[in-house]
Amino acid sequence: MDRAALTQFLEDEFQQVAQMFAIDDVAPMTATIRLLNDERHLRPGGTVSGPAMFALADVSVYLAIMAMIGPKALSVTTNCAIDFMRKPASGVDLICETRLLKLGRVLAVGDCLIFAEGHDAAVARASLTYSIPPDG
Amino acid sequence: MDRAALTQFLEDEFQQVAQMFAIDDVAPMTATIRLLNDERHLRPGGTVSGPAMFALADVSVYLAIMAMIGPKALSVTTNCAIDFMRKPASGVDLICETRLLKLGRVLAVGDCLIFAEGHDAAVARASLTYSIPPDG
Amino acid sequence: MDRAALTQFLEDEFQQVAQMFAIDDVAPMTATIRLLNDERHLRPGGTVSGPAMFALADVSVYLAIMAMIGPKALSVTTNCAIDFMRKPASGVDLICETRLLKLGRVLAVGDCLIFAEGHDAAVARASLTYSIPPDG
Amino acid sequence: MDRAALTQFLEDEFQQVAQMFAIDDVAPMTATIRLLNDERHLRPGGTVSGPAMFALADVSVYLAIMAMIGPKALSVTTNCAIDFMRKPASGVDLICETRLLKLGRVLAVGDCLIFAEGHDAAVARASLTYSIPPDG
Repeated sequence: MDRAALTQFLEDEFQQVAQMFAIDDVAPMTATIRLLNDERHLRPGGTVSGPAMFALADVSVYLAIMAMIGPKALSVTTNCAIDFMRKPASGVDLICETRLLKLGRVLAVGDCLIFAEGHDAAVARASLTYSIPPDG
Repeated sequence: MDRAALTQFLEDEFQQVAQMFAIDDVAPMTATIRLLNDERHLRPGGTVSGPAMFALADVSVYLAIMAMIGPKALSVTTNCAIDFMRKPASGVDLICETRLLKLGRVLAVGDCLIFAEGHDAAVARASLTYSIPPDG
Repeated sequence: MDRAALTQFLEDEFQQVAQMFAIDDVAPMTATIRLLNDERHLRPGGTVSGPAMFALADVSVYLAIMAMIGPKALSVTTNCAIDFMRKPASGVDLICETRLLKLGRVLAVGDCLIFAEGHDAAVARASLTYSIPPDG
Repeated sequence: MDRAALTQFLEDEFQQVAQMFAIDDVAPMTATIRLLNDERHLRPGGTVSGPAMFALADVSVYLAIMAMIGPKALSVTTNCAIDFMRKPASGVDLICETRLLKLGRVLAVGDCLIFAEGHDAAVARASLTYSIPPDG
């Protein structure tokens, strides 16, 4: 799926998610996904944006996988390790640069660096494993 | 802080979070925190409750630490590893049983098992590290 | 497999490992495995025993799985998250208390607490995912 | 410390480790460390090289930190998350490409991709946190 198909898929399947995130770029084995600034502040805890960053990493790897294998909505996260390294600058979007390190028949592994837009130092790092359901 | 003080602290400092969670029990180095069923469905993705479970584990370790050292709101998560093991039963609260494995001067480590209420098999497991700010 | 069968399996399949570790106890979904003190000091870095504790957690979950499903030597670790919480006391064995949290058809998840023998506070915590090969 | 100083430090402080690893390259916030093929097979379990890959990632982040802050031998790993993605090709060295994502006053975070020499797909991915002791 290209960027347009992926955006449509997100809107069809995950309406709430579609309002929070934007797909900046998608290419083979990589994706750049954006957490919109307006939505950051609607998260529990306000400035404590750990769960928002987790959600961003989670959806980013999911979309990178969907872009490669097509819409298998039942793929599920089995594991995530995330490091929160810096407090993100306020008032800007968060950008998640994602690459797939493995895309197997059963398991996929992706890793993410999350940046506050316009800042060089990553605010968080995450790696996730997804389980891909068998065909048919 | 005991359960009443902790509940008050949650309401004062994190209003949105206070509506999502309830403190079932708190004791030295342990806490049992509940993610209310009504709130589960307000999360992005509906049934894809990964971020909701992350948020539950995150707040549970945070509250277990606060119960021991008092209200240091600036404590921050530096790291989380979470395994999603089963799809949680729908229509029930999620219960997070948390214990602190380390409560140092600078770092605290907690681990969590998350259950769907009334079910024996854990749906998720998480471990988190918090950085505790120095006094004064 | 019970403790005797598991010890034999370890000696047959992993001679070097068998000299480092002892099986203290095995029961449904749990195992207690010991890293022998003599072997701790043969690890790279001497007192920097991170890799030795990783190896202990890794073999412990592996043996707990083998005890349940029989000798499928091809099961492989796909993921590990480990927290090193305290410097272990010197001159004693390390004891790894392991429980399986999930034993699925394809994936198994175990978690471990590692203690220096005779000390109450865990020195490390680990969680591991194993991929189990299909039958036949 | 440059490559020569780092190699000398490794030989002085960690003789056993120094025989297993070679420092290919070190630059600001990055390092490339090699696990020598001969040493791979001396690890417990022979082909089950999980602990060897953990040790490689651990020493790589350690050396990348030492290169930046000088020899503080007491820095310790507090946390590691590692994904084993492919079985490494046999008969070749393993190469660990490491970058530091955070180098704070108290905590440092590094991540690693491990390759079998001459092969493009990473066999493992790891992220580690080190605790840096205060001066004086």
